[in-house]
Amino acid sequence: MDPIPARVTAAAVWTGSGVDVRTVPIPELGPGEVLVRVRLATVCGSDLHTVTGRRSAACPSVLGHEAVGDVVAVGEGADIPVGQRIIWSVTVVCGVCSRCRSGLSAKCLSVRKVGHEAFDGDWPLSGSYAAHLVLPRGTTIAVVPETLSDAVAAPAACATATVMATLEAAGELTGRHVLINGAGMLGLTAVAACAAAGADVQVVDRNVDRMALVPDFGGRASDGGPVDVAIDYTGSSAAVSAALGRLDIGGTLVLAGSVTPGPALAVDPETVVRQWLTITGVHNYEPRHLHQAVDFLDRTREQYPWEALVVSPVPLKQIASALRSPPSGKLRTAICP
Amino acid sequence: MDPIPARVTAAAVWTGSGVDVRTVPIPELGPGEVLVRVRLATVCGSDLHTVTGRRSAACPSVLGHEAVGDVVAVGEGADIPVGQRIIWSVTVVCGVCSRCRSGLSAKCLSVRKVGHEAFDGDWPLSGSYAAHLVLPRGTTIAVVPETLSDAVAAPAACATATVMATLEAAGELTGRHVLINGAGMLGLTAVAACAAAGADVQVVDRNVDRMALVPDFGGRASDGGPVDVAIDYTGSSAAVSAALGRLDIGGTLVLAGSVTPGPALAVDPETVVRQWLTITGVHNYEPRHLHQAVDFLDRTREQYPWEALVVSPVPLKQIASALRSPPSGKLRTAICP
Repeated sequence: MDPIPARVTAAAVWTGSGVDVRTVPIPELGPGEVLVRVRLATVCGSDLHTVTGRRSAACPSVLGHEAVGDVVAVGEGADIPVGQRIIWSVTVVCGVCSRCRSGLSAKCLSVRKVGHEAFDGDWPLSGSYAAHLVLPRGTTIAVVPETLSDAVAAPAACATATVMATLEAAGELTGRHVLINGAGMLGLTAVAACAAAGADVQVVDRNVDRMALVPDFGGRASDGGPVDVAIDYTGSSAAVSAALGRLDIGGTLVLAGSVTPGPALAVDPETVVRQWLTITGVHNYEPRHLHQAVDFLDRTREQYPWEALVVSPVPLKQIASALRSPPSGKLRTAICP
Repeated sequence: MDPIPARVTAAAVWTGSGVDVRTVPIPELGPGEVLVRVRLATVCGSDLHTVTGRRSAACPSVLGHEAVGDVVAVGEGADIPVGQRIIWSVTVVCGVCSRCRSGLSAKCLSVRKVGHEAFDGDWPLSGSYAAHLVLPRGTTIAVVPETLSDAVAAPAACATATVMATLEAAGELTGRHVLINGAGMLGLTAVAACAAAGADVQVVDRNVDRMALVPDFGGRASDGGPVDVAIDYTGSSAAVSAALGRLDIGGTLVLAGSVTPGPALAVDPETVVRQWLTITGVHNYEPRHLHQAVDFLDRTREQYPWEALVVSPVPLKQIASALRSPPSGKLRTAICP
């Protein structure tokens, strides 16, 4: 740790056509703000969608919202010690609006998001593809246990926490037949979490390389039979429809992957009624899910090969080489400033 | 009460073209069976659908599944005293199959239903349009408090208990904006229950006479704005679609009325995800809901004019006059053997 926090840092600024690693001043910290030095950031698929133009985002901006870092300075009233290794939430929330008060802080009326804000706005250092970033008051912070490596902990802030939210929406898992659509980082994490909870877990993914990872995380290829719970991380209209059709009496379909416009899902109301079916959506997550994510990864760190899913990190200056799909057998590239 | 239970009783047998009040032998009671003398039965809309041919049912059969009665005899091991005034569930369940064990006894693999079984089968006295009926082991029985009249208690066994199940599926109600589709017996009961739970309750029903009842039960006409919870008892495709479109962030649509084939509901998966929406179906109810129904009616007996919804009962011999839609301002006809 630096004895005196640096006055400038390096940040990868997404310009719309590429990333430009720049020297950026570190602002004075306001009340409740936390300055973090990034140890390792993983690259979430949504950032890949941004840089390939499939997803619109603030631009220019510093991307990156899955990372581990050390607290290097805190503003007045911030309740976290300097030196602490932490991860932090994607959403930064007010805590007082109607949505925050009703338990849907992910949809806070004044929500801001780590790695999603304009570089030329009032929070330039919002993203984790940087040597430092600033966490505003209203960010959820979780301490990373010493037993958990940076590479395993980093995805907790997006992939793992979102999976925790989808599992909460799915309800009881022990002894249930579960279908997971998609064997990317979220899908495979859900496979492991459902298996760890005592479910029989089937997986559908057209990607053979990803399916090859499934058995190591407690799942198996789909047998096409009825299921109690289906969770979709693909957003594929055909996959969602097929999952709905496989629900057994009392079954629940959790949608998490449908985040871009697509065709309507045809739902038969009589089947929903007579079979007591539930269809429910999850987007982002609540503070408790971040803590659950860290706990889950730590609890299963010897049971599942999490580390093997992450490519060895490249330096921030080589970020361009990390902003692409990971090679076969891996689900996350990583950056180490 | 008879000192010795009668050997024969009168039952209204639905023949497909009408009802025929017959003298029927009362069988010897098997283990766990309960013989009930009906005090008052109300006529559920589903029986009206059966006699008008809109709904297929076992035939011949004794209809009727909303009633209050006195226990007049019990088989070995039945845990209810003779003389007790009771109501009973629609579903008769095994308690041991996978669905019963998973908490969905309404979908028991060997479910039988009060008022739904063939007269020429092994349970001829299954319905409440009779002077007596037999409750098999596996029927849920609830004691009716002395403070609750027969006319108010009878609908508990179908309408009120089903409403309790839909409210459970709807989740938190206090302080929420609730839309109820349909101001029939179920809808109006839901209005009252949601209002009693502290919700702001809006109602949609094309029937002006029914809408006129809404204010007395704590609801108001719809203002068309966003709602946190919408519950449909109509099964109308247009009403269901409109309700879905009015859900606010985190909203839940409970379907209870869609019990006949109809057009598919078009659901936008991206909206479900980004707005954390839930669509869930309820059909029949679980044992706890019958007890909740009796408690609710008793607790609100001075708050809402339940009694005024029920037409003065007609004798069993005049059942034909009760098997029609109730007049304006009423929601249930009744029969008093």
